[in-house]
Amino acid sequence: MRIDVLTLFPNMFSGVFNESILKRAQEIGSVQYNVVNFREYANNKHNTVDDYPYGGGAGMVLKPEPIFNAVESIKEDTKSTPRVILLCPQGERYTQKKAEELAKEAHLLFICGHYEGYDERIREHLVTDEISIGDFVLTGGELGAMVVIDSVVRLLPGVLGNEESPVQDSFSTGLLEHPHYTRPAEFRGMKVPDVLLSGNHKLIDEWRRKQSLKRTYERRPDLLQSFNLTDQDKKWLEEIKKERSLF
Amino acid sequence: MRIDVLTLFPNMFSGVFNESILKRAQEIGSVQYNVVNFREYANNKHNTVDDYPYGGGAGMVLKPEPIFNAVESIKEDTKSTPRVILLCPQGERYTQKKAEELAKEAHLLFICGHYEGYDERIREHLVTDEISIGDFVLTGGELGAMVVIDSVVRLLPGVLGNEESPVQDSFSTGLLEHPHYTRPAEFRGMKVPDVLLSGNHKLIDEWRRKQSLKRTYERRPDLLQSFNLTDQDKKWLEEIKKERSLF
Repeated sequence: MRIDVLTLFPNMFSGVFNESILKRAQEIGSVQYNVVNFREYANNKHNTVDDYPYGGGAGMVLKPEPIFNAVESIKEDTKSTPRVILLCPQGERYTQKKAEELAKEAHLLFICGHYEGYDERIREHLVTDEISIGDFVLTGGELGAMVVIDSVVRLLPGVLGNEESPVQDSFSTGLLEHPHYTRPAEFRGMKVPDVLLSGNHKLIDEWRRKQSLKRTYERRPDLLQSFNLTDQDKKWLEEIKKERSLF
Repeated sequence: MRIDVLTLFPNMFSGVFNESILKRAQEIGSVQYNVVNFREYANNKHNTVDDYPYGGGAGMVLKPEPIFNAVESIKEDTKSTPRVILLCPQGERYTQKKAEELAKEAHLLFICGHYEGYDERIREHLVTDEISIGDFVLTGGELGAMVVIDSVVRLLPGVLGNEESPVQDSFSTGLLEHPHYTRPAEFRGMKVPDVLLSGNHKLIDEWRRKQSLKRTYERRPDLLQSFNLTDQDKKWLEEIKKERSLF
């Protein structure tokens, strides 16, 4: 997979692309990163990338030319038609399903604005996907792009070794994870639940499933609505509800 | 504000903390960052921070001692009781409201796991807030911590200059932003809407409000339900719905 990033702050990406899984993915040839400062594509005297908004108002707006020029230059160099992804609060809410969809692509290109709005013509005529990572305000699109890139690259074949594969991916199974414990069995008086030390795998599996259901019920009941509960799950959920109603 | 980050990949933060607003916030003394590799607090021969899960299963679990030790060392050094924030998929969904809440604190401490799960005793006895930035799987908590830090630090007094203040913060006003345009008025045949060039500010304001309503209706109808619509907004929304039903 090839990943291009257009940003005014290319140095923001160096630490993230050069550590851990994102670094390894590049080393094994699964992904190639190319971070471009789109100021280099501003064909004007002062390399201006933004300007005042038509119609007045506060804030600056990113001009269309530098971003159009940068995207077209990349398309030409790579002879490829990437998904062109704009990070913005108005975008589609990012989910694991979208990560899985993007992981099938050969070429992704991210446009990261900073402070400013984007000229609407960028959205309408250049961008294929507008993505928001959540309902909060960030200084720019860079952190959103990193989040999307991390979630996509870890899905590429061969990138995650067995030792790093998540214990259980919450948003793949549909339930939140059960609690985990490791040594020591007692730490400052805080003990690991007896069942986990019992060696009885049937009981351990039951305990974990019930804890997953409990945590999901308490923290993210919305997830239960789209989850396919077994009959046993339903019984446990009734127990969980009863236990809670005693307090 | 003081911000501590516990991570096994401290270099991931260098690029992000040394650019743009997060850098400036430190320069003007609004925030002080302290990134700690909690492996330094593993008091065992091989500096081990993780171990196999009790009860079996794939994946590794972060041990309690190194993280307890690191947090306590920071509390002692700073004579302070920070909010201790764990980034994890099971956490409370992060929103702008939470950013505003955290921005009032004097000291935040972030715990970033990587690959692994956390020993449950960390959650139960050390952590004050569990946060998830969204329903997607990331390699670690580092990007989530950066997202939270960026959204909080930009709210601190004096950090955002006027020139960077967002044109309109979608999640502060409750509606998505209207489209923005800047020069040139015509770019490759794509024109700026006439109304924005008219100089008639009443018409411009109306157009913008209507576009905000339209975009919110089309992309995030859920936001409209908690938004306090004026009578004029309601009329426009009816028009927008009628226009759409013609296609």
